[in-house]
Amino acid sequence: MKVIKLNFNEITFEDIKRAGDVLSGVSKKTDFIYSNICDGCDVYLKLENLQRTGSFKIRGAYNKIYNLNAEERVKGVIASSAGNHAQGVALAASIFGIRSIVVMPETAPLSKISAAKNYGAEVILYGNVYDDAYARAVDIKQKTGAQFIHPFDDPHIISGQGTVGLEIMAQIPGTDVIIVPIGGGGLISGIALAAKKIKPGIKIIGVESAAAASMKKSLQIGRPTSLKSAATIADGIAVKTPGELTYQITSRYVDEIITVDEDEIIMAVLFLLEKFKVVSEGAGAVSMAALINGKVDFPGKKIVAVISGGNIDISVLGRVVDKGLAKAGRKTELSTIILDKPGSLQDIIKIISDQGANIVEIYYNRISLEAELGYARVNMVIETQNSEHLEQIIKKLHEKCFKIQY
Amino acid sequence: MKVIKLNFNEITFEDIKRAGDVLSGVSKKTDFIYSNICDGCDVYLKLENLQRTGSFKIRGAYNKIYNLNAEERVKGVIASSAGNHAQGVALAASIFGIRSIVVMPETAPLSKISAAKNYGAEVILYGNVYDDAYARAVDIKQKTGAQFIHPFDDPHIISGQGTVGLEIMAQIPGTDVIIVPIGGGGLISGIALAAKKIKPGIKIIGVESAAAASMKKSLQIGRPTSLKSAATIADGIAVKTPGELTYQITSRYVDEIITVDEDEIIMAVLFLLEKFKVVSEGAGAVSMAALINGKVDFPGKKIVAVISGGNIDISVLGRVVDKGLAKAGRKTELSTIILDKPGSLQDIIKIISDQGANIVEIYYNRISLEAELGYARVNMVIETQNSEHLEQIIKKLHEKCFKIQY
Repeated sequence: MKVIKLNFNEITFEDIKRAGDVLSGVSKKTDFIYSNICDGCDVYLKLENLQRTGSFKIRGAYNKIYNLNAEERVKGVIASSAGNHAQGVALAASIFGIRSIVVMPETAPLSKISAAKNYGAEVILYGNVYDDAYARAVDIKQKTGAQFIHPFDDPHIISGQGTVGLEIMAQIPGTDVIIVPIGGGGLISGIALAAKKIKPGIKIIGVESAAAASMKKSLQIGRPTSLKSAATIADGIAVKTPGELTYQITSRYVDEIITVDEDEIIMAVLFLLEKFKVVSEGAGAVSMAALINGKVDFPGKKIVAVISGGNIDISVLGRVVDKGLAKAGRKTELSTIILDKPGSLQDIIKIISDQGANIVEIYYNRISLEAELGYARVNMVIETQNSEHLEQIIKKLHEKCFKIQY
Repeated sequence: MKVIKLNFNEITFEDIKRAGDVLSGVSKKTDFIYSNICDGCDVYLKLENLQRTGSFKIRGAYNKIYNLNAEERVKGVIASSAGNHAQGVALAASIFGIRSIVVMPETAPLSKISAAKNYGAEVILYGNVYDDAYARAVDIKQKTGAQFIHPFDDPHIISGQGTVGLEIMAQIPGTDVIIVPIGGGGLISGIALAAKKIKPGIKIIGVESAAAASMKKSLQIGRPTSLKSAATIADGIAVKTPGELTYQITSRYVDEIITVDEDEIIMAVLFLLEKFKVVSEGAGAVSMAALINGKVDFPGKKIVAVISGGNIDISVLGRVVDKGLAKAGRKTELSTIILDKPGSLQDIIKIISDQGANIVEIYYNRISLEAELGYARVNMVIETQNSEHLEQIIKKLHEKCFKIQY
């Protein structure tokens, strides 16, 4: 499986244009949102999170299966994936009416397992991590003769993803900069090949999660290099080793790779939810994270940020919402020391209630080491309208001589 | 303010077409998502949640201000609103370079207050409910001579919202049914006028929150009628009294009004998030709630559901996420009685941990009335992968003779 003889020169602009024809009527020409987040430049968000299957992956998967011959197709296809690629392969195979098997780790969330099943895949759960699932998929491929559909390191996959680049250049003529999330590198490779052919001076900026920056590391070292771990909330780009082909293309055509941290990713997902009303997964939001944290600076330019996917797990969404509540001063933990006698607790609760805040959790601790004999520590979680409301409550509590930590 | 002399016949199809021209380049021709949620029919979601300002309201507000004369415009505009209308008026006024004042209740969430400010409005916070803010706005109007921009009961507002209908008929030719959220009735009035002119046989279905079904009640009684309260999670359509004009148009052109309850609304918001990757507010999701609960049945037909807005409050989004976690068997409260002795708690925790679940809250209560002397009640909140995982844990606990309530 490791010997890849292809050279990136074998992927031509014609291949990507052909993929565009192949995908016509299959993948959606996804919409744009204009954003004024950047002072003095124009930013457009390319919404591949609203693509069929919730990410751009249907493009490459469909183009790959289209390019199999009849004999190959009849044996079906197999893939290993913890998420978006599984759904892309499942739907593409279903459209062709062929069998698809997807091996997913046992830890994959039910939503992603059922999505792959709903799109028509036979799902096999195996092992705890992606690598286990991959090994099992290779095993099944050897036994059944099914075609293995690589998630990124394949010319037809790259050409398929490159159609995003064709659409950007047609929809937003004069684009100066394209910002693209990087996992294995399939999407950015395709977009870079397409866009630089159309406009050689265009800048292509990749964004990786700092916790899984395998492409950046590979470029620094000068060859595809593996990370020991790639644990990030942006699970869709948690790739330990970039592809051989995608490495070649990235090193030649991508102008810069930026990294963003976990907190920046969560805030970007929140920003896309609140401001633009779209759901992106962590991987899909890294391009936005780079923008809102001022990590790309192209004054006066026309910038397209690719929001690559929206298949966020509901519990991750919960973390995003909690972050949003805390940021807006809407949910706060307060802690104070009060006299351990009847009525003390009521005093403090009354102040908070009188200010119109909700106490949603309370913990009264008289054996706290911080509380002297005769005193108790009280921890509370309160819900307020906004930061000013919170400040006002803190002020009232201070006036009544409660020392508050929060 | 109450004497409205206009008759709905005075709003013509030409007015709506003219509004379409007026709005060209201002409001966005919002995209569609195809959905296969309905067996044997085609459903398209019209994404007005992705409209500028996060709802369709910019259409009517801009059309209204456009139709003011120079003398009127110079005095500025005023509106009262707890949400979407405020943002629509603020942006529309800013585009015309005129002053806008928006009176909002003091209880309005910070996100909506700052959105209106960011779009250029002067925001006045007044009173606790919408009606207080409305009274204050009327007062300011009388003092300043600013034009009051009604949220729905105005021919130019209705014509502006009607452009959603024009777009639907152009984008999805052959539409048989349009499902539209109803608050004051401006959106459905405009859509009905436009769509029935283009295709007289089309069905227009309105959806109200059951907790704020003022239009349905008005139609039953035969005249615009007020509800005593209109408290619903779908705050964008929490209207106690429909308009005079909108009542006339609805009674003539709307084929049916359906109601959906709070739970159905929350689940519809969740469904739009998870399945279609878009954020809708409660009001925006009621058309989807009607569909997924089988309350509209048009076999073989082409159905358009309008998702009218996406300005959801972050704490409401938190409730949606919690619902999603509970539904997926991801977060559950367990309760059991154990022996009140060292090691008992560890026994039960070990079983849960061995099954790979996370305990996120625990409460040990030895004075519970349900626990006999020598026993204690333990309540726990656990996070599991899915319902099967939860069932498996419950089974293991039963095997070890723990009686579990959940």
